[in-house]
Amino acid sequence: MADFQPAEFEARAERASTAMAAAGLDALLFTTEAEIRYFTGFRTAFWRSPTRPWFLVLPRGARPVAVIPAIGAALMASSWVGEIKTWPAPRPEDEGVSLLREALAPFGRIGLPMGPESALRMPLADFRRLGAEFEDATPLIRSLRMVKSDAEQEKIAAICEIGSAGFARAPALFRKGLTMREAFRDFRIALMEEGAEDVSYLVGGKGPEGYADVISPPGDDELREGDVLMLDTGAARDGYFCDFDRNFAIGRAGDAVKRAYRRLDAATEAGLAAARPGATAAELWRAMRDALGAPAGGAVGRYGHGLGMQLTEPPSLAPFDKTRLLPGMVLTLEPSIEVAAGAILVQEENILVTEDKPRLLTHRAAPELPVI
Amino acid sequence: MADFQPAEFEARAERASTAMAAAGLDALLFTTEAEIRYFTGFRTAFWRSPTRPWFLVLPRGARPVAVIPAIGAALMASSWVGEIKTWPAPRPEDEGVSLLREALAPFGRIGLPMGPESALRMPLADFRRLGAEFEDATPLIRSLRMVKSDAEQEKIAAICEIGSAGFARAPALFRKGLTMREAFRDFRIALMEEGAEDVSYLVGGKGPEGYADVISPPGDDELREGDVLMLDTGAARDGYFCDFDRNFAIGRAGDAVKRAYRRLDAATEAGLAAARPGATAAELWRAMRDALGAPAGGAVGRYGHGLGMQLTEPPSLAPFDKTRLLPGMVLTLEPSIEVAAGAILVQEENILVTEDKPRLLTHRAAPELPVI
Repeated sequence: MADFQPAEFEARAERASTAMAAAGLDALLFTTEAEIRYFTGFRTAFWRSPTRPWFLVLPRGARPVAVIPAIGAALMASSWVGEIKTWPAPRPEDEGVSLLREALAPFGRIGLPMGPESALRMPLADFRRLGAEFEDATPLIRSLRMVKSDAEQEKIAAICEIGSAGFARAPALFRKGLTMREAFRDFRIALMEEGAEDVSYLVGGKGPEGYADVISPPGDDELREGDVLMLDTGAARDGYFCDFDRNFAIGRAGDAVKRAYRRLDAATEAGLAAARPGATAAELWRAMRDALGAPAGGAVGRYGHGLGMQLTEPPSLAPFDKTRLLPGMVLTLEPSIEVAAGAILVQEENILVTEDKPRLLTHRAAPELPVI
Repeated sequence: MADFQPAEFEARAERASTAMAAAGLDALLFTTEAEIRYFTGFRTAFWRSPTRPWFLVLPRGARPVAVIPAIGAALMASSWVGEIKTWPAPRPEDEGVSLLREALAPFGRIGLPMGPESALRMPLADFRRLGAEFEDATPLIRSLRMVKSDAEQEKIAAICEIGSAGFARAPALFRKGLTMREAFRDFRIALMEEGAEDVSYLVGGKGPEGYADVISPPGDDELREGDVLMLDTGAARDGYFCDFDRNFAIGRAGDAVKRAYRRLDAATEAGLAAARPGATAAELWRAMRDALGAPAGGAVGRYGHGLGMQLTEPPSLAPFDKTRLLPGMVLTLEPSIEVAAGAILVQEENILVTEDKPRLLTHRAAPELPVI
């Protein structure tokens, strides 16, 4: 729990207990990294290994019970837990199932996230072997995690500063003739030199009128004069992410792409003006769409989202999401626009919703497409 | 599919079809990154975002059908697929469920991985809405993926070379007074300079007689003279991992830890001698345990595992795993030993099982604990 003081976890558990009482739940079960870390502070890269499941039971009004592989016992003991039950994983014939069944036995109604954006990080066959019924705890955990504590806000602000410092080095990093593979590598190194612990998410694109998609890995194709280079990074420190991109024109920029960039920038300004407590995520989406002044749509599907322990979190800045903004929510503003057939431009900022106007966590992108 | 030629995916689909026929399955359903990439070549960092599920249906004797968010259509179109069905995700009221139901409708018996080391990367509520019955396809997909093609072996060998080059720079990187946070950062940068695309897994430990656990993130504690520093990295390139560690004594090393290191090294030699086709994973475990000459046990739970598109894959070098080794399997040899109460030492190598003796993919660790 080195990332936070115990009071942080006490507050999280207390809010969860209040929400459980309101929902008539006696306990919550979690199988996923973010939720287990949220309630205990247990942070490890070991989640990268799919071999072992990890479980956390959070009873109403009590400290969490960790049901985990023995390899995690030492680290979990330094986390905010009431009890740790371990088994010598891997042990396929009983991969924690009987221990978990025991840990769940005292509770009647048990919540489990099973709705939008959730996953079941354990074998489905083992889940069925539990023989328990669960209620959907997605709305509950979503409402808890969406509003960030002061300590969480500080962590996200810190990694956003690191991201901004990385992008500030762009003129020295990117140039004609560099391959995309090299550009990704050099940017990752720059982010780590600035203080990022990990750059697990980095995507990008390039092209004279924007880029075909925003999720591809880098290839050996070189940056050419007139290309717009976009890099979008989810760097992390202390287990919290930034998530924003920047666009740079290499040598020169065409008029269409310069105009599109200005429209995106205006949409971001509209988003900043609309991001007030009480507005809905859908209204924030609409403010940006109206500023874009066109049926921009595009394949990205939304104009931003929540951000924190995960690269993307609820809410979605999209027409379907009626979540009301609250102070303490951290959001990305991410309008996108199609410049030509199959070529889009995206601009992204990270903000903190406050009582008044939002606080920019990222250094605001230049109002005109920067040429480097 | 830039990572491989189409023939690679044709061969994978053909082997899968043969296995499906043997298992009486008409199609397979996948929700997880490694499996979807294995059959299509679809590789993206976008999996880091939990917002959207991705689905792949692999019919027996036909190309895969991708049922995916529209944001992935451009990249998927360059992959090895027969058909792409998209929806404008996120769309919580129907997050691909009706499209997936359509895609599965033509098939009778459908396999889905639901056994050991699997997860369900989609909301459980949506899975239930599919209203379909599935057979467990874990043994099938496990047997396919465990044996690596020549092209896969090359990729793993390449990232292991990068990892070895990174560790070769240890004397210049690590020294007394450096914090663990700095050591992790500098090593990550070194690996990327050597050619790694991502260092998503890096854990480590330090202490005069070994380390308390092997999964903790780094803190601000400094390396001291007499510490043993261990770093264990899963670096990746082209979507394939290495996974090995190295130990370094800072300035000087105590006798107990030097002796323990020699025993570990002897266990690795025993593992190398035993890693022949036809031996079981359990026999390989036993050969290492006998060489350790003690009830070493320890919290790690096994002495190695498979390696490839994921940091850890089947089989497990553990008493329960009766998998017979086959040429083309890539394994870690990872004996561990308790040096003192709460202090362990781990040594790890990556090997390729061949017709004859195994090929070392990592540069063999020094036979004596290196002092830097």
